[in-house]
Amino acid sequence: MIEVLDGKRHTVPPVWIMRQAGRYLPEYRETRKKAGSFLDLCYSPELAIEVTMQPIRRFGFDASILFSDILVIPDAMGRKVRFEEGRGPILEPISIEEVDGFISGNAEWETLAGRLQPVLEAVAGIRSALPDETTLLGFCGAPWTVATYMIAGHSTSDQAPARLFAHRHGEAFKAMLNVLADRSADYLVRQFEAGADAVQIFDSWAGVLDPAGFERHCVGPVKRIVESVRARIPDARIIGFPKGAGMNYRGYAEKTGVTAIGLDWTVPPGFAQELQKQVPVQGNLDPTRLVAGGRALDEGVDEVCAALGSGPHVFNLGHGITPDTPVAHVEQLLKRVRG
Amino acid sequence: MIEVLDGKRHTVPPVWIMRQAGRYLPEYRETRKKAGSFLDLCYSPELAIEVTMQPIRRFGFDASILFSDILVIPDAMGRKVRFEEGRGPILEPISIEEVDGFISGNAEWETLAGRLQPVLEAVAGIRSALPDETTLLGFCGAPWTVATYMIAGHSTSDQAPARLFAHRHGEAFKAMLNVLADRSADYLVRQFEAGADAVQIFDSWAGVLDPAGFERHCVGPVKRIVESVRARIPDARIIGFPKGAGMNYRGYAEKTGVTAIGLDWTVPPGFAQELQKQVPVQGNLDPTRLVAGGRALDEGVDEVCAALGSGPHVFNLGHGITPDTPVAHVEQLLKRVRG
Repeated sequence: MIEVLDGKRHTVPPVWIMRQAGRYLPEYRETRKKAGSFLDLCYSPELAIEVTMQPIRRFGFDASILFSDILVIPDAMGRKVRFEEGRGPILEPISIEEVDGFISGNAEWETLAGRLQPVLEAVAGIRSALPDETTLLGFCGAPWTVATYMIAGHSTSDQAPARLFAHRHGEAFKAMLNVLADRSADYLVRQFEAGADAVQIFDSWAGVLDPAGFERHCVGPVKRIVESVRARIPDARIIGFPKGAGMNYRGYAEKTGVTAIGLDWTVPPGFAQELQKQVPVQGNLDPTRLVAGGRALDEGVDEVCAALGSGPHVFNLGHGITPDTPVAHVEQLLKRVRG
Repeated sequence: MIEVLDGKRHTVPPVWIMRQAGRYLPEYRETRKKAGSFLDLCYSPELAIEVTMQPIRRFGFDASILFSDILVIPDAMGRKVRFEEGRGPILEPISIEEVDGFISGNAEWETLAGRLQPVLEAVAGIRSALPDETTLLGFCGAPWTVATYMIAGHSTSDQAPARLFAHRHGEAFKAMLNVLADRSADYLVRQFEAGADAVQIFDSWAGVLDPAGFERHCVGPVKRIVESVRARIPDARIIGFPKGAGMNYRGYAEKTGVTAIGLDWTVPPGFAQELQKQVPVQGNLDPTRLVAGGRALDEGVDEVCAALGSGPHVFNLGHGITPDTPVAHVEQLLKRVRG
């Protein structure tokens, strides 16, 4: 995995799956019962280590990703987050009047450190528990994506509330993204120090912005994170994942400085190859093919490998695995990828 | 508008707005009260003509679009549709066992004709009521987008149910898209005969498919519609709108045969210009800029005009106008576009 991120092509690509520790696994559902809320699970090192290790033990993925959530950052920054079954995350929406206080109240990493300490303990514990050859990935949400939840207060279909907020309050929004970027960079640096081999920045809502907004709210803040992390860890490997960016994938790696890019499942082969000439790529099987199994899965795996196999490629889905995925289909995927 | 669709560039682009007859207008909300359900409004020629004409009278747009809904087709094909306030459309999800009956039961236009007659009467009535120089647009939903609602039974964030259905039941799904395409083509031909000057095919969910799925479920059925319409109306002007297609916009017009393409608001200027070398383009202002107004709106209009002004361009939003848009902002937009 590390060799591929460094630009080397492997005949059999390294493989992991976004959200590989999750509800599709019976052992995850068992452990989940032991925690109170979903965030309790994220903040319990013992349980977070356990669920992170489960898919590694079962499937032997080439990379392990810290079990956590992108919203621990706003949670640690004082915007209380809770998860409701079937509704996703719920936050008190931030108003324009609260932005100044949010920024000044989070000017230093120390404000967040206590709340996030258990997550960093989990990173260290996972690194100890993992086989040496398994890559450990840390992660955070990109500022734009985190801000969409902070502004709407819940999941929406197109993040219109955050887009509107950004149009109405351009300066305040920019300052808010900057502080999110700075604290996220601090957080990633601590994850590296605790044992992460590489990190991924999830910009799950990169696909809802117009071109000017994409440059301003996606590219700019991710570049800021990358520069801040590299100022402290010069060789830090960082995967950018601007999901749904479409044509805006072009130039994204160059502009932000990320080491590699994650492709969602809609990116067509020709364009993926064009991107792969610049940086290693990760992806991009449609997760519903993994649910369907059978021929749809085999054909999908073959198409991804044919499209991306001629350059540095980390095999993954184009988005997270869903709870309705049969475990047997993950085994089928691994068999097909590894041959 | 017609000249632009025929490939001519106008210094001041023709302008209309998707969903321009709608809830942001007080006069629409008044008329809406007179109809029972939302579909009653679509199926009442008198009321449909009235709401279609309202934005023309108020703003003098260059094109008028029939007030209707993409789901009248499945409704007329026996998949009963209703709209719930705040939830959107609700249908009884179609099961794999029902697909054969759906196909054989809708083998002829005559099955649908009675239910859709009032819509065609509305088209004729609108054409009579419109000024001669105002273009009248008919429309339908693309088979893929219509099928996503038929399968899920309601709006979803990523149309996973339809994607999964397509992976599991490839042949049945293809047959279902074909019959939707054939009846949609019949429907568009009748709209032309009733007085439509051009039509638009809305593929609102084109952005959730992987490359193979996009070719199979979006490109294929739209090509089938275009060919079927042109077999009867050789010079039919057809705008394709594969919203969210990203890189898959490339080649879409050539492959489907559409006259022009609608761009969603995420399409960046350089790529839009590349597409515009092949066909006229329509779009693509972020609708939340129209809600925000002020500088965000003026800058957005200027950016769209700068990006697309050097070729054939129909000014529009990149998606429908939302109910929270102030009427004054529509006036501001028109002033900015028309100078």
